[in-house]
Amino acid sequence: MERSACLLFQCSDQIGIIAELVGFLKDHQVSISRFEEYTDRDFFFARLEWRGDHPWKTEEEFDRAFQPVADKFKRSGHRVHFFEKPQRLGLFSSKEPHALIEALNKAEAGDYPNTEICFLVANSRSIEKYAARHSIPFHFIKTYKDPAKHEGAQLEVIHRYCPDVIGLARYMKILTADFIAEADCPIVNIHHSFLPSFIGAKPYELAYQRGVKLIGATSHYVIPALDQGPIIEQGVIRVQPGDSVEHMKKIGRDVEKQVFAKALEKVLQHKTITYENKTIVFN
Amino acid sequence: MERSACLLFQCSDQIGIIAELVGFLKDHQVSISRFEEYTDRDFFFARLEWRGDHPWKTEEEFDRAFQPVADKFKRSGHRVHFFEKPQRLGLFSSKEPHALIEALNKAEAGDYPNTEICFLVANSRSIEKYAARHSIPFHFIKTYKDPAKHEGAQLEVIHRYCPDVIGLARYMKILTADFIAEADCPIVNIHHSFLPSFIGAKPYELAYQRGVKLIGATSHYVIPALDQGPIIEQGVIRVQPGDSVEHMKKIGRDVEKQVFAKALEKVLQHKTITYENKTIVFN
Amino acid sequence: MERSACLLFQCSDQIGIIAELVGFLKDHQVSISRFEEYTDRDFFFARLEWRGDHPWKTEEEFDRAFQPVADKFKRSGHRVHFFEKPQRLGLFSSKEPHALIEALNKAEAGDYPNTEICFLVANSRSIEKYAARHSIPFHFIKTYKDPAKHEGAQLEVIHRYCPDVIGLARYMKILTADFIAEADCPIVNIHHSFLPSFIGAKPYELAYQRGVKLIGATSHYVIPALDQGPIIEQGVIRVQPGDSVEHMKKIGRDVEKQVFAKALEKVLQHKTITYENKTIVFN
Amino acid sequence: MERSACLLFQCSDQIGIIAELVGFLKDHQVSISRFEEYTDRDFFFARLEWRGDHPWKTEEEFDRAFQPVADKFKRSGHRVHFFEKPQRLGLFSSKEPHALIEALNKAEAGDYPNTEICFLVANSRSIEKYAARHSIPFHFIKTYKDPAKHEGAQLEVIHRYCPDVIGLARYMKILTADFIAEADCPIVNIHHSFLPSFIGAKPYELAYQRGVKLIGATSHYVIPALDQGPIIEQGVIRVQPGDSVEHMKKIGRDVEKQVFAKALEKVLQHKTITYENKTIVFN
Repeated sequence: MERSACLLFQCSDQIGIIAELVGFLKDHQVSISRFEEYTDRDFFFARLEWRGDHPWKTEEEFDRAFQPVADKFKRSGHRVHFFEKPQRLGLFSSKEPHALIEALNKAEAGDYPNTEICFLVANSRSIEKYAARHSIPFHFIKTYKDPAKHEGAQLEVIHRYCPDVIGLARYMKILTADFIAEADCPIVNIHHSFLPSFIGAKPYELAYQRGVKLIGATSHYVIPALDQGPIIEQGVIRVQPGDSVEHMKKIGRDVEKQVFAKALEKVLQHKTITYENKTIVFN
Repeated sequence: MERSACLLFQCSDQIGIIAELVGFLKDHQVSISRFEEYTDRDFFFARLEWRGDHPWKTEEEFDRAFQPVADKFKRSGHRVHFFEKPQRLGLFSSKEPHALIEALNKAEAGDYPNTEICFLVANSRSIEKYAARHSIPFHFIKTYKDPAKHEGAQLEVIHRYCPDVIGLARYMKILTADFIAEADCPIVNIHHSFLPSFIGAKPYELAYQRGVKLIGATSHYVIPALDQGPIIEQGVIRVQPGDSVEHMKKIGRDVEKQVFAKALEKVLQHKTITYENKTIVFN
Repeated sequence: MERSACLLFQCSDQIGIIAELVGFLKDHQVSISRFEEYTDRDFFFARLEWRGDHPWKTEEEFDRAFQPVADKFKRSGHRVHFFEKPQRLGLFSSKEPHALIEALNKAEAGDYPNTEICFLVANSRSIEKYAARHSIPFHFIKTYKDPAKHEGAQLEVIHRYCPDVIGLARYMKILTADFIAEADCPIVNIHHSFLPSFIGAKPYELAYQRGVKLIGATSHYVIPALDQGPIIEQGVIRVQPGDSVEHMKKIGRDVEKQVFAKALEKVLQHKTITYENKTIVFN
Repeated sequence: MERSACLLFQCSDQIGIIAELVGFLKDHQVSISRFEEYTDRDFFFARLEWRGDHPWKTEEEFDRAFQPVADKFKRSGHRVHFFEKPQRLGLFSSKEPHALIEALNKAEAGDYPNTEICFLVANSRSIEKYAARHSIPFHFIKTYKDPAKHEGAQLEVIHRYCPDVIGLARYMKILTADFIAEADCPIVNIHHSFLPSFIGAKPYELAYQRGVKLIGATSHYVIPALDQGPIIEQGVIRVQPGDSVEHMKKIGRDVEKQVFAKALEKVLQHKTITYENKTIVFN
């Protein structure tokens, strides 16, 4: 496998950032294969990709070499990823399997680079067959109204497999702030509405009552506030006159699964930067 | 002009409605050219169109003939429209002209059947030139924080021209319940967000802050509760990373004008039924 | 299972068709639950659905009762389907599994009413695992440049299982006119371009060369002329600057699978009428 | 007006291009405000934007300074644009005004930066009123089957006004190779189909006959081969069952005007590079 890597960088916008980033890589005989940058008010964001050998054995070694560059800019932050490094994705699911199936098949098709799905946790035994089809370790963990009763067992699974990313494939249970902190990795949720409309448990019912003409789905990073995390991807589909809540759920499933799978792809390709409860998502 | 007409009908869903409607028209030697029906839970909605001569000289005459049919069904309501009858559209605007321009050009292109735009009211003199281009009576009426100070003058215009429909082409002022009642005709608004997200004055600013990946526009009937009326049409457009509020406003204008023009078209073609603060919009 | 049925009807457009259709069902104490009709120039098309008991034991019995009605209209044709009657779907696939996977999962989710997938034929052994996951009889049949070498074996499978519909889930081989005639059931293909652009074997390569900004997929009924059959459904997706053929294939897979699955759903719900090498697809 | 500029650059892809481009600007104390690059096989494309003062008085002066950088790369080409330099857009139209109206209103709204519409040529007197509304010099030039009879007069107008870009707002006449050469500026056309489908005179009729489920529009640079030029932008809209050719034309107008207006915006913002009869369109 040829070496390749990407660098995500953000800082206060000012003169000379691009020249500095490009210059640093040039000084290390690294040639940029992909450069993408955006500015949002006084914030600057960039993603640089390079292919071929480079002087850094580990990501930590890169960090040490790069830190002096980062220090030249205010409010700077960066994250490097070496694509030779395998990634681990853990999945949570409830009894609705469509978003899960899409993620499993995308992974099988090779759309998530160098990624292994390391576990599947569900509160319904009906989900086990999907794990079996893809030979993924399955853990049935019953859930309760009080998260304290099940989050311990879930965290045990997380600590055993150490995922780099967790995907909530219509898991539909509230995560406590403690759980999120202890999981200690990005958690990607799919919510079955066009946020910020219809937060919470019954979005299709609410969409039906309001009589909207488009329904949607939103994939976002999980934060303690319910359905309030940084949005990664959204999609919509048109409602026809007379569509029932049941029919909305049916056509909504296609949007949900596409939005979730695309968000996971962006996260696993290291194409997102989070700031001020928003995301920059690179192409 | 060949005679033609449409009938909008709604009632509690039950056995035999279609046969009854079709039978009534057949009994009057009227042949249906277009039939469209929907059911929403226990509600039934239909729109029937016919071309060629029919026995009713006026819409009132049709109403008298049809009432016994309507009375056979619970919670029934109907509205007939004879297409030979000219319609009058009144427009309100503020200083943003894009939705207004689209409506004026659609009217000029003949997209609003047998409709005359009878007046244009605006609180900005910059709008006058658009009225002049299309030879439409223009009335400048200054607006104030207190609607009582300007709604009288506006109602005078309405009473003088007697519009069948009023379109708020980004008028952006709150209408009082009294004004709505006294205007006594459907009022169609365009709101610059994907409702119910971002109700009120600064939707693009709120969309920017929330970091949504799609922004939208919503056309709805006006009711006293702000931005809460029955939705007629919605549209969305994708936001790119780093898009400023200003850029959102710019790309949003295209969605707003399309959604507004399409909603007006549906209303002026008598293709909407309102119920439970929702609409059925026929094709 | 409550009885329910649908009737597809087409004829030369003339006065009184709707009244006649509705009247026939009323005379048999059948109440229409869904009525949808379209006119295309001098052609009339309708689909009627009813729920609850009806006087006809079999579809053939309905046909006998209805024929006198059909005979009143020129160029008439009709097809009735009783939803209690199980349907059988046969699938053909090649080594690209995405359209197949989508169809299998839609079937599993219950989106194809009262339908059993009765066989899966493929010319690649890599496809067998998908059949196994869904417990569907799998037949590996090698294909050759000369269809005469493999169509016999394929027809044997078809004659053994007697499918009502065949879906070509990216099967990618030309079917001979004899094969189509002998299969004697509707065959639904997914072509990986926005037809009529880019007919034949390498549509993404051609789309790349032409520099189109949207790529698409088309599901159509198979006729002897390659990629020329009546179109059932189409979809598109936007291409980004610099997208390679490989990347187009990757993003195109999502459109292909959605378009194919939706076309199958429409066909299996008896929501298509074919005429003049076109289709009417009902909602 | 603050100075600002953009540079479009293309060359054979190789190591070190980005560093070289960024380095050149840094050496001249110019700070990049926007950098966007793409690779298509062995081609590299970039667009760089900068704001604030820079050392070059004219575009020619920049060219001289930059040429040694360009010469380092194979098959290189570049184009600089100083945004303080006014641009001139000439428009051609036929009797269908919708694309023209959209372009005129976009220009009036300020969507085409520092651009003046310098003339409007049409072969129908009905178009004059649109020129009058926007105070644009109008030239009625009758067209004939033989272009030799009208292209002379058209070229006189072009030579008088010296447009930087010509937009064909549904002009619908074939331009000869000589005309294109002598006009000597980019010519942007809107074709009323989703190219390469339905080239030539009657695309909606052909779309209707083929029974496509989506119709579209394509904006492209004009080359001597009819409808074969590099595509800039495309859009589509869904067709409903029974839609007549007339109705397709009506809903198609909205797509045409949006696609045309967006293509013009990209061209006038210097966001397109042409290569191998394709375009790279920057964000």
